[in-house]
Amino acid sequence: MITKPTLILDEQRCRRNIEEMCLKARENDVDFRPHFKTHQSIEIGNWFKEFGVNKITVSSLSMAEYFSVEWDDITVAFPVNLLEIETINKLAERIKLNLLIESVRSIEFLSTHLKSTVGVFIKIDVGYHRTGISPDRTNKIDCIINESEKSNLLEFKGFLSHAGHTYKCRNKDEIITIHNEVVALLKPLKNAYQEQYPHLIVSYGDTPSCSVAKDFSIFDELRPGNFVFYDLTQHQIGACEIGQIAVAMACPIVAVHSGRNEILIYGGGVHLSKERLEDEKFGTIYGTVVEKKDDSWGKLIPKMFVKSLSQEHGIVSVPTSDISNYEIGDYLLILPVHSCMTANLMNDYQTTENKLIPRL
Amino acid sequence: MITKPTLILDEQRCRRNIEEMCLKARENDVDFRPHFKTHQSIEIGNWFKEFGVNKITVSSLSMAEYFSVEWDDITVAFPVNLLEIETINKLAERIKLNLLIESVRSIEFLSTHLKSTVGVFIKIDVGYHRTGISPDRTNKIDCIINESEKSNLLEFKGFLSHAGHTYKCRNKDEIITIHNEVVALLKPLKNAYQEQYPHLIVSYGDTPSCSVAKDFSIFDELRPGNFVFYDLTQHQIGACEIGQIAVAMACPIVAVHSGRNEILIYGGGVHLSKERLEDEKFGTIYGTVVEKKDDSWGKLIPKMFVKSLSQEHGIVSVPTSDISNYEIGDYLLILPVHSCMTANLMNDYQTTENKLIPRL
Repeated sequence: MITKPTLILDEQRCRRNIEEMCLKARENDVDFRPHFKTHQSIEIGNWFKEFGVNKITVSSLSMAEYFSVEWDDITVAFPVNLLEIETINKLAERIKLNLLIESVRSIEFLSTHLKSTVGVFIKIDVGYHRTGISPDRTNKIDCIINESEKSNLLEFKGFLSHAGHTYKCRNKDEIITIHNEVVALLKPLKNAYQEQYPHLIVSYGDTPSCSVAKDFSIFDELRPGNFVFYDLTQHQIGACEIGQIAVAMACPIVAVHSGRNEILIYGGGVHLSKERLEDEKFGTIYGTVVEKKDDSWGKLIPKMFVKSLSQEHGIVSVPTSDISNYEIGDYLLILPVHSCMTANLMNDYQTTENKLIPRL
Repeated sequence: MITKPTLILDEQRCRRNIEEMCLKARENDVDFRPHFKTHQSIEIGNWFKEFGVNKITVSSLSMAEYFSVEWDDITVAFPVNLLEIETINKLAERIKLNLLIESVRSIEFLSTHLKSTVGVFIKIDVGYHRTGISPDRTNKIDCIINESEKSNLLEFKGFLSHAGHTYKCRNKDEIITIHNEVVALLKPLKNAYQEQYPHLIVSYGDTPSCSVAKDFSIFDELRPGNFVFYDLTQHQIGACEIGQIAVAMACPIVAVHSGRNEILIYGGGVHLSKERLEDEKFGTIYGTVVEKKDDSWGKLIPKMFVKSLSQEHGIVSVPTSDISNYEIGDYLLILPVHSCMTANLMNDYQTTENKLIPRL
């Protein structure tokens, strides 16, 4: 029973998303190391094991600690935070831990402070320009590899990149264009190092590229994460269908303002997050409303969207023709703009079969 | 010691903010019922008791439950959520609970489902248009009051309003203008009901108005909340000085990109929240950087601000002249755009004296 904002998980949709991405990786003969930062849940993580997944990606050492009870091969796909060296040493003693390096300073620090073996991925900037080393700066790359080879606790694994600029795409063709640019950037890098490092791993992994692209022949490993739930942002990018979105926030209706065609919901920035998207028709939106169904949810309700959010309040815009369908004491189901941020705000998921699944 | 994103609380600044607002309410001979949705902490809440505060405001029944171990007079300043009637009944059995009503349907539901006495505030829309009843709709107001008088468990207390449109102000004069408009709206309402209800409470409470306005003679109760920490938004509005902001996020530096004058920090939307503000000079920003000091922090570092956030990453723009001052393994102190949203994302506060204070 819904009494307050509750993140509903459609387990079937979620398992289907997992299965599809597992199959895609297998068909393309590329290793699958899914990113678990989206669901942050031991139980959902275990669903991946049913498809043979045995290694994962996370974005913090805190998440690595949480998942290390179930997984013994974890890549922290975030530039190594030297201030957490104690946690690194504790984890590396127990599991296969891969760290992400993009500076000589970090690799020098690790070589003098590590107590157990860690794998080293060099972060390559493939055009997103959030962080990483440009693939043409082979001098810097060589310095890091050389420094790692001086320590018997540092094992150079390969190159890791994230084409986060696909999030600016608005259709599949644009995603493919970026994907091809990334492949063109990484090919010479792989060629330059593969002979010397025959086990070199080129790891890649945004959800839009992994959902849409077909040629992964240059990659050895895929690390998408968001696909487990998808969301409105992925739909806007062209990476998923609305029907693939596997989470929806149930939000009680606490006021109906017929005069201005608005519903006030209990559901604000502390539930959905303040993540927004620019909709062609409606401007800035924070979520869209879907039809309720007994066992899950159905289609988008046309012209019904979250137009603003405060801490606990949300305002939903409703067409004049529909406003009389809603009343206080009922609730709405809202698809989130960014499921990673929304899931991170909630303590657990409630499945459409009424099972409670906890989160980190 | 800072190892990962940590919300630092300057207890002295925070206690000063509390003291100033307590004194202001006392000097204006108006009851003080501070909103606790910002800090959401039993321990910080208890600091208010030192200034004689004995009743509080919250924005959810979950918060009311949390604080009910220390406080026995709580107003939930959020339109009553009928789906939580069980929680309402549990709380109303133990404490003085005030609920916020803006529809006849809600008051009818309560009158048939309540098991203990609750106080009723009618939510009045004073121009923010998020929710509430327009003060000229006295017919609807009368219906709610009449309905509440039919039940001996519903006690009509008065009118509650929130001038949230002060958040669009950009200086003190604009805040005062809105404040005066609100007073002009509420005066006739108070006059119309005061004779019949001599104990009528007119409750009011956004932080900008309460920080800046001087005349509260029409009000019986003030309910500001954000002032406990303040933030960059309140500073932009004209409600506080930078020196009054009492929380800062410590974020480890994980990469330095001298070529483009950017620092990558471990500190993203899951720490600071995606709350943004439009800065006149820098465009959209998600935080600004302050000087570190042994016992707290100092001034803003000019031209240094958070320009974008992902889930765990933040990109800080740094002036060319300063970029060489920063290196991996150090950390930055960042003032948040919206302290309510930031605090809500963290499990606890670490005071500048290294005390850990838990949160709901």
